[in-house]
Amino acid sequence: MNEPNLEYHPERFAEDFERIKSLAEHLLPVYADLRADDSGVIDNQDYQDLIAVLHELHPADTAAVLESLPLQERVLVWKLAAPEEDGEVLLEVSDSVRETLIEAMGKEELLAAVEDLPADELAELAPDLPHHVVSEVLETRDEEEREQIRSALSYEEWQVGAIMDFELVSIRADVSCEVVLRYLRRFESLPDHTDKIFVVDENDVLQGVLPIRKLLVCDPDDEVGNVMAREVVKFRPEDDTEEAAQAFEKYDLITAPVIDENKRLIGRLTVDEMVDVIREESEADMLSMAGLQEEEDLFAPIIDSVKNRWVWLAVNLCTALIASRVIGAFEGSIEKIVALAALMPIVAGIGGNSGNQTITMIVRALATGQLSAARIGLLLKKEVAVALTNGLLWGSVMGLIAFFLYQNMGLGLVMVAAMTLNLVLAAMVGVLIPMTLEKLGRDPALGSSVLITAVTDSGGFFIFLSLASIFLLG
Amino acid sequence: MNEPNLEYHPERFAEDFERIKSLAEHLLPVYADLRADDSGVIDNQDYQDLIAVLHELHPADTAAVLESLPLQERVLVWKLAAPEEDGEVLLEVSDSVRETLIEAMGKEELLAAVEDLPADELAELAPDLPHHVVSEVLETRDEEEREQIRSALSYEEWQVGAIMDFELVSIRADVSCEVVLRYLRRFESLPDHTDKIFVVDENDVLQGVLPIRKLLVCDPDDEVGNVMAREVVKFRPEDDTEEAAQAFEKYDLITAPVIDENKRLIGRLTVDEMVDVIREESEADMLSMAGLQEEEDLFAPIIDSVKNRWVWLAVNLCTALIASRVIGAFEGSIEKIVALAALMPIVAGIGGNSGNQTITMIVRALATGQLSAARIGLLLKKEVAVALTNGLLWGSVMGLIAFFLYQNMGLGLVMVAAMTLNLVLAAMVGVLIPMTLEKLGRDPALGSSVLITAVTDSGGFFIFLSLASIFLLG
Repeated sequence: MNEPNLEYHPERFAEDFERIKSLAEHLLPVYADLRADDSGVIDNQDYQDLIAVLHELHPADTAAVLESLPLQERVLVWKLAAPEEDGEVLLEVSDSVRETLIEAMGKEELLAAVEDLPADELAELAPDLPHHVVSEVLETRDEEEREQIRSALSYEEWQVGAIMDFELVSIRADVSCEVVLRYLRRFESLPDHTDKIFVVDENDVLQGVLPIRKLLVCDPDDEVGNVMAREVVKFRPEDDTEEAAQAFEKYDLITAPVIDENKRLIGRLTVDEMVDVIREESEADMLSMAGLQEEEDLFAPIIDSVKNRWVWLAVNLCTALIASRVIGAFEGSIEKIVALAALMPIVAGIGGNSGNQTITMIVRALATGQLSAARIGLLLKKEVAVALTNGLLWGSVMGLIAFFLYQNMGLGLVMVAAMTLNLVLAAMVGVLIPMTLEKLGRDPALGSSVLITAVTDSGGFFIFLSLASIFLLG
Repeated sequence: MNEPNLEYHPERFAEDFERIKSLAEHLLPVYADLRADDSGVIDNQDYQDLIAVLHELHPADTAAVLESLPLQERVLVWKLAAPEEDGEVLLEVSDSVRETLIEAMGKEELLAAVEDLPADELAELAPDLPHHVVSEVLETRDEEEREQIRSALSYEEWQVGAIMDFELVSIRADVSCEVVLRYLRRFESLPDHTDKIFVVDENDVLQGVLPIRKLLVCDPDDEVGNVMAREVVKFRPEDDTEEAAQAFEKYDLITAPVIDENKRLIGRLTVDEMVDVIREESEADMLSMAGLQEEEDLFAPIIDSVKNRWVWLAVNLCTALIASRVIGAFEGSIEKIVALAALMPIVAGIGGNSGNQTITMIVRALATGQLSAARIGLLLKKEVAVALTNGLLWGSVMGLIAFFLYQNMGLGLVMVAAMTLNLVLAAMVGVLIPMTLEKLGRDPALGSSVLITAVTDSGGFFIFLSLASIFLLG
């Protein structure tokens, strides 16, 4: 994609944004279904204005507008957006919004939208397109491209092979820089983000890379083999995209070669894809911690939202029921000292909060590769020490308050002990949950916020009520 | 920074990693303070091995190793790492770890570490360096660089001016591509990430940019003015780095010019800095939601961890106390029906969980610019509808369970009503908290997880206990 044909003015974009929204809202009641009757529409000033604004937008901006519109307005705007950019826009929007857009398109529109896309981008869209559209598009491509698309589709979403692109420039090591420059001039344009040219032998085996920065300053008579970098960061199609993204981040890469098991160059990774991986990865962690299954279209039908959220709500209900049975077991104690019912949520609550702090820190450290599962012992020691400190500190404060509220010294002391113990429990579980998930090869963020609260609730109630039963009623 | 002189093998790096850790652990008891007695050390094989591994690492890898080591081992490794890369490593590590490394260095070591850094990187380190070191370093720089450093330091951390770099290549519009190529060849090397050359007039006013991709394919006789792109995405030093990062992400940029109020070119932004901004921003959101003030050194002294966490723990205690007083107000009802004590945490818990789902989704949408505060009405409607659906669904399940447990029909119905109402409350507050913070220009993630739990706890207890008091005891 080229650079946008507009200056970057966030304010101006925000204005366009509001403009599009209000135009779409005005038009909606009149032309809910534009296909049914297009004749009278042309004279409508709002309609003309909306098209004019939309056709000036960069595809990425069109995508942003579509994301933030409710379903009906979204479909209306989508029908009026510049059709020659439909493919780019589909690539930019999130999965859930893409689905709603594709649903609104006919077969011919879909074919037109994807016909100019390069192989890697077509492969990215293919899983979301109707089957017959995909097979029809494939027929228009040559054998090489079909092979590339099939290859991309054969990898999992999280693998390098699924997101690498196939447009690249490669040269031989035994030519001079002068020859390379002349060779490049024969291109109409170079692939996006070309910061290096790949050097291969006659079997396409990767020999090294020639950074453009070097090419531009080298002596025209120098041979590529003497100027190129031989040790390069390279990837395999089976590699994890998150690890590739971390390598891009660490080593400040713009592009990197992808090679097959015979070290033959088969594609390249570009930093713009890696930026998306980083963004998606940290979003997925955040959603996952809160117990959401996937990124949600903000204006999804209610049923979709309910589906996205029900699993962890159900888990939460089960754990809440357990906590409730823990309390139920101490109903006798509560009948005798009803203050216990009022104080027990404090013990549970601070445990949940503190446990969430620990778990968030660890999920983050695991995601950035700062932490390996081997450091578990050391971390446990530290987190327990922090919990002990906080427990004695805040436990004493709450113990005093409980003492003043209920004029019961024993109750105050039980409060101190219960809070300290529950914070220690929270610290241990806050370390163990994500580290164990990581060791098992699972996503350490998975529902961690729900799980830690489950433990600190049941644990907190049990610790507090049993201490109270033993020392105040025993 | 150049590309690392090693192939990217995550496994190999992991091996090095473990190697360094175990060597450091072995060496620690013997050479806790290497400066005190260096003479006997040289013969130690572990010592030699550790140095050998460390000197092969890329600075970014050294930084990753240092992040994951406990304090004493970290200082030991730091002293043995390749000193010529000290500056790069300091730039790579997180703020909290940087502090521990700088503390371990003498004045001469610090001066040596930063002497070769370009102006923008020196400015990035300056706030963390001892004052006398900064002033001594500044004396070694020429007037232009001192001015650049002063300028960078005059901006806030979150502004483009603080992270832009000053190394760039600029040319005039009235020369031919041939001349540009010859001009570039006079450089020893081009600045990192040079994907475009900036075209300026005699007053340094930005006229356009010449992408290297175009330069390489254009006719040598073409004039730059005819080949360059005139409309470019450009930034002002006062701009927000997060907005700049979003623009880089949207428009797939590698570098972009920064101009002053007279449109004069003063620096450039590069994608590697933007990747860091994106990573830091999403991390900060995650930490902030959980009520952590800042990224924490995993092996920070306990006192630092306590300080980082106490504010939100204290807030949580206050809100828990309020929830406790709400329960306290209904002690009479609980004495009569002790089952209320066992059931009330279920109502509060599911509200907290569901509210967290809502708030997480909204914080994420606000962060990626998908959502503007103006859509609040529409979102409220949708979230309340989702909450009503979930409330009636899961409320009925729990109502039935409560009925079977306690053989009390009224209790079951109160349960259904209370859960539904608390989920609706959670939905409304889950939308309103982040949207209001955003409207006020505050960070929408700020402690949002703690705040939502506060509302759903107190609210849940109040709704459930007052419904029970009215319908079961009234």
